[in-house]
Amino acid sequence: MYKLVLIRHGESTWNLENRFTGWTDVELTATGVAQAQAAGQLLKAEGFEFDVAYTSVLKRAIHTLWHTLDAMDCTWLPVVKDWRLNERHYGGLQGLNKADMAKQYGDAQVLVWRRSYDTPPPALEADDPRGQRGDRRYAKLAPEQIPLTECLKDTVERVVPFWQEVLAPSIRSGQRIVLAAHGNSIRALVKYLDNIADDAIVGVNIPNGIPLVYELDADLKPIRSYYLGDAEAAAKAAAAVAAQGKA
Amino acid sequence: MYKLVLIRHGESTWNLENRFTGWTDVELTATGVAQAQAAGQLLKAEGFEFDVAYTSVLKRAIHTLWHTLDAMDCTWLPVVKDWRLNERHYGGLQGLNKADMAKQYGDAQVLVWRRSYDTPPPALEADDPRGQRGDRRYAKLAPEQIPLTECLKDTVERVVPFWQEVLAPSIRSGQRIVLAAHGNSIRALVKYLDNIADDAIVGVNIPNGIPLVYELDADLKPIRSYYLGDAEAAAKAAAAVAAQGKA
Repeated sequence: MYKLVLIRHGESTWNLENRFTGWTDVELTATGVAQAQAAGQLLKAEGFEFDVAYTSVLKRAIHTLWHTLDAMDCTWLPVVKDWRLNERHYGGLQGLNKADMAKQYGDAQVLVWRRSYDTPPPALEADDPRGQRGDRRYAKLAPEQIPLTECLKDTVERVVPFWQEVLAPSIRSGQRIVLAAHGNSIRALVKYLDNIADDAIVGVNIPNGIPLVYELDADLKPIRSYYLGDAEAAAKAAAAVAAQGKA
Repeated sequence: MYKLVLIRHGESTWNLENRFTGWTDVELTATGVAQAQAAGQLLKAEGFEFDVAYTSVLKRAIHTLWHTLDAMDCTWLPVVKDWRLNERHYGGLQGLNKADMAKQYGDAQVLVWRRSYDTPPPALEADDPRGQRGDRRYAKLAPEQIPLTECLKDTVERVVPFWQEVLAPSIRSGQRIVLAAHGNSIRALVKYLDNIADDAIVGVNIPNGIPLVYELDADLKPIRSYYLGDAEAAAKAAAAVAAQGKA
């Protein structure tokens, strides 16, 4: 049996301000740092050990991983950073306040933008300064590979190949993985692993900074999954994520 | 022309306590963190950009790199951690106070232990709890590859192959490198690059947290090297390092 641990980054400055973030590279708050440290302490207390860590190229996930590994005293672990683990790109919504948008367009429209499987938010213009086409961390990608917006389906279409090409072979080779990423890149992975229908994934919310443990069989099919630590706190945190887009 | 930037880690808790550290995995002090951040600010102000970062598997170097990259807003860079960039192993001296040892054995003996090219300090016993043979970060090494003591010559013999196998090809491929490591792994590299004689390397001291820039020609031979920022401050810091082993 294999184990895989997924952690959504700790609270970011734009989580705190209730803004759509996407590929905008915002910092963790002090609360976010504390969440990441607590995740590491919990993993350590439960006897988890890892051989390799994966994260996105966005600092809220990278720094979450740092603080988690530091609390486990294993910052020496190899860390692989890949843009395919980035948050869903939020297009023209990046930077805007979720509750403001709900007041302006209604809760239902914001829920579509946040949780519809295949309707992306309005796209950014290619030269919008909020976009990433001039960002050198994506210089190896063709411009058209750098999204101007994404629906969850688009995110799934880059996360699942990353699972197939990188994560699954790594797990099969015996490596114990911790992965620090984002609400929607983790939802993409959860949808794939748990084979959740397109219209059911809307109800899945990932809380910040709580380790989500998957136990996988020899075919990497989930046997069970659970949040580490206080289950009630995890459920409450997930419900708070669900409520963010309300006016 | 190529550029290479080397940074010795910021002040560690055992630098502060004037203890021989070697492969003991000690933390940065608050001063060490500030030095690492200042290094990043300096590199950023001088327009340095990097494509890949290298460090050891010891947290004082890893965390120095984190803080340096964070100050440059590029924590998304790939980071390669390798034990061959570790500090020289200090054998049976690990944990002991440098000035106490000088009182006990004399300044001359401590200078030999600290700076002799080919005389190692007394070896640890293989099962000494101060040793690393049970440390899982070295699990891929054969036990006899994990040193029980090292002279600088031993350190050179692992750092130079790392240069030849990893760093030189990386630089030749056009990657701009920053490397955060340790006093003696950097001295090993400096000795090799500048072709310094065995008996002359004793006079080379590397200050904590100040970027050392090498400009290299097409054959990776140094054109010049210099400390970034205040040259006088760098010289003073290097002299302080030289004075650490006196009673």
